[in-house]
Formats: sequence, C-alpha cells, structure tokens
Amino acid sequence: MAHIDLGQPILDRNERLAAVNRARFAEAGVFVLDLMASPGAGKTSTILATIAALRDRYRIAVIEGDIASKVDAEKVKAHGIPAVQINTGGACHLESDMIKRAVDTLSLDELDLIIIENVGNLVCPTDFNLGEDAKVMILSVPEGHDKPYKYPGIFQISEAVILNKVDTMPVFDFNEDEFNGEVHTLNPRAPIFRIAATKGEGVAEWAEWLAARIEAKKAERAAGADA
Amino acid sequence: MAHIDLGQPILDRNERLAAVNRARFAEAGVFVLDLMASPGAGKTSTILATIAALRDRYRIAVIEGDIASKVDAEKVKAHGIPAVQINTGGACHLESDMIKRAVDTLSLDELDLIIIENVGNLVCPTDFNLGEDAKVMILSVPEGHDKPYKYPGIFQISEAVILNKVDTMPVFDFNEDEFNGEVHTLNPRAPIFRIAATKGEGVAEWAEWLAARIEAKKAERAAGADA
Repeated sequence: MAHIDLGQPILDRNERLAAVNRARFAEAGVFVLDLMASPGAGKTSTILATIAALRDRYRIAVIEGDIASKVDAEKVKAHGIPAVQINTGGACHLESDMIKRAVDTLSLDELDLIIIENVGNLVCPTDFNLGEDAKVMILSVPEGHDKPYKYPGIFQISEAVILNKVDTMPVFDFNEDEFNGEVHTLNPRAPIFRIAATKGEGVAEWAEWLAARIEAKKAERAAGADA
Repeated sequence: MAHIDLGQPILDRNERLAAVNRARFAEAGVFVLDLMASPGAGKTSTILATIAALRDRYRIAVIEGDIASKVDAEKVKAHGIPAVQINTGGACHLESDMIKRAVDTLSLDELDLIIIENVGNLVCPTDFNLGEDAKVMILSVPEGHDKPYKYPGIFQISEAVILNKVDTMPVFDFNEDEFNGEVHTLNPRAPIFRIAATKGEGVAEWAEWLAARIEAKKAERAAGADA
C-alpha cells in the first residue's frame, strides 16, 4: 500500500520544492530539524527544552505544523523565539511548499537553527522531505514500547530517537530493553536520548548531539567558502 | 488542504465499497464499531476491556489495523476471540476494501459485534467510511487536554469519546474541564467515558452505551423483518 494514495506526482513536486528549500538553508547556513511524533508525545515541550539548552549559543526559530489552532506557536513566542504557525487544514503532514511559505516570513540570515514541529502523526510525515538536514522522532513512554513493531518506517528514517516522559516509566508497563533492541534492529546507528522534557531531564545530551550537527554544517559551509 | 492529496476518486471508491460492507453487516445483523486513536492511546487495551465486559452477552470479533506486525491480533486471540490482522504496508488509515477482505475471513452470521481497531492516527481515519455503525475515538490523558484544538475533525466525527488512562491524571497536567468543554463545543452530543482500560475502571458505562447501540440495531432489524 505504502502511500500509493498520495500519488507519485505529489511526491515528485514535494521533492523538487524540498531541493529549493535545502538550497536556501545551505546558502543562509541555517540547520533545519524536522521533529516528528504522535499527538501528545511532547514535541512542543521538547522544543522548549531544546531552546532553553541552546539559545545562548544559537539563534533559533520554530515552524509549528498543526491541523488547526495556533497554541503551539504562541507557547514558543512566549519564550521570545520567532515562531510561524502552519495550519494544514486537514492534511496529516507538512509538505515542502508549506515550509517555503513559512520560511518566507523568517529572516534566514539571522538564524542558525530552525526546528520544524511536524503534525502529530507516526506515518505520513515520513514520506515527505522538507529540505531539512535531519529528521528526528520522539516516542513518549505512555505510548508503549511496541511502537517500533507497528510503525517501523518512522524509526528507520529518523537520525535520532528521543524517548520522552521517562519520568513516568514507573506508571507504565514500558519494556525499555525491548524498545531499545527493536529500535536498533530497525536503525542500528540512531542514538536514543532519554528525556523528561517538561522537567528538563536528559535534555543536555540531546542538545549536544544537535549542536554537533549544527557545527558540522557550519564547518562544511566554511570549507566550501574557502574552496 | 483537507486531504485533497488523497483524491476524490479514491474517496468515491471507498464510499462505494463502504456501502457494500454496510449492506453485508445489516443482512447479518452485526454491529460494527470503528475505534480510532493516536498510537499508544490504548485501543487494544480498551478492546480487551470491552470484550471482558460484553463477551457473555455478545459474540465478538476484532479486526486489527496496523502498518506492520500482528501483535495486536495475537493479544486478542489469546483471549479466545476471533481476530484478523490487516497490515496496511504504509497506509495511515484503513479503507473499506481492506475491511471487505478481512470480513471475508469471518463468519458474519455467528457474530453480534465487530470492533475495528484503526491505524493509530488522529487525522487520516476520519475521512474514510468503512461501512461501520459508529466511529468512536479514544484520547489518553498523557496526550494532553489541548488535542481537540489541534485535531478537531476526529472529535467532530466520533459518536462517543473515551478518555483513557484517567488513573494517570495525577502524573500529567491535564485540564479535564477544558478538555470536556472543547469536546462539547466541537460535538455537543458525544458522551465522554472516563476509563482506565488496563485496570477495567469505568469500562462498564462505556460498554453499556455500546450494548444499547447493538440492541437498537437488533430492534431495527427485527422491525424491518416484521414489516
């Protein structure tokens, strides 16, 4: 089945516009993260915790994707960070043309990092390249350790996996060994970061991974400019 | 946007096959429930609790929808209940042709109730009629009280809303008054059932609502046969 519904022409068009976005991000030297998760896994809390960890080092903006409402963008703006809300209407994922329009409202040259919060969904966002530098997913402990069996695609495409709400582990029957084992079967190289975003626990390690990626892109760009 | 991706021809074809399914269910006198929720909201646990509450009164079968794996069907079968696993490959929702093929493997005349567990997703399943008698959704407390703002469609299309994992309310910052208010703004007639599926708490009230719907269908069918 694999999304044949969506139609190859839509995926092709998305891919072309993703390349346009990627070129713009490269030119401006901004690192772009596509953050994916189920509804309620803690995407916005993780973004706020990441901002707290990295805002002294990097200039950050956020693009929020939701079917409806602007509550998430408002939460981010309340912390003094530029945020653009995309409302997809009914679409279950973000596409690169939506990102293009959102980016048009930002001053790219004044940014080091854009975090895109995708629509809450473990399926549809995996097929859509947005021009990002990395896709990362969050799974939250209450969702259960069996999710890699059921939604393998998103675990395979993510460069890192954030396990959120680890502070609620005692409340839920979450088999962490089984989870880690299955994630690494699907995606042997992805690190798994254990965090409790609302409490700031474990965020430093995740933020350092992201900072290393941002620095690698800056170094690559500087090397390109020298050449 | 509203799912224009999917294409009207696909929706039209789905609707035609849903009508075929509906006619088969009506002829056999079986009530069909389409149960929708995010990944990890507790669909399978709720189904098992519902089976425990109603298995003495009704003959029940389950159709499990997942991208991959057959763990849910195996959990249901372990309780001695017929279960069919549909693996969608990558599709983010069930469609009526998948239900048709699953139903072909069941003995419809020996059933009173079929529970369909849709793919974990708050967006895509809302647009697809499967021939069911009722769509019902589960939201779990860890997902947060703001989900009706972000995913209004599924709250509007559901005839009842199950709020699961209420036993974890003390662990999460869930504003139940705000949740109830927004659900009833979107869908004034939907009852909200508070349950803790894995503990069996609150399940009786939900099961009675479902039993009343099953009885109403039986009465309607008996009236039709008399006419």
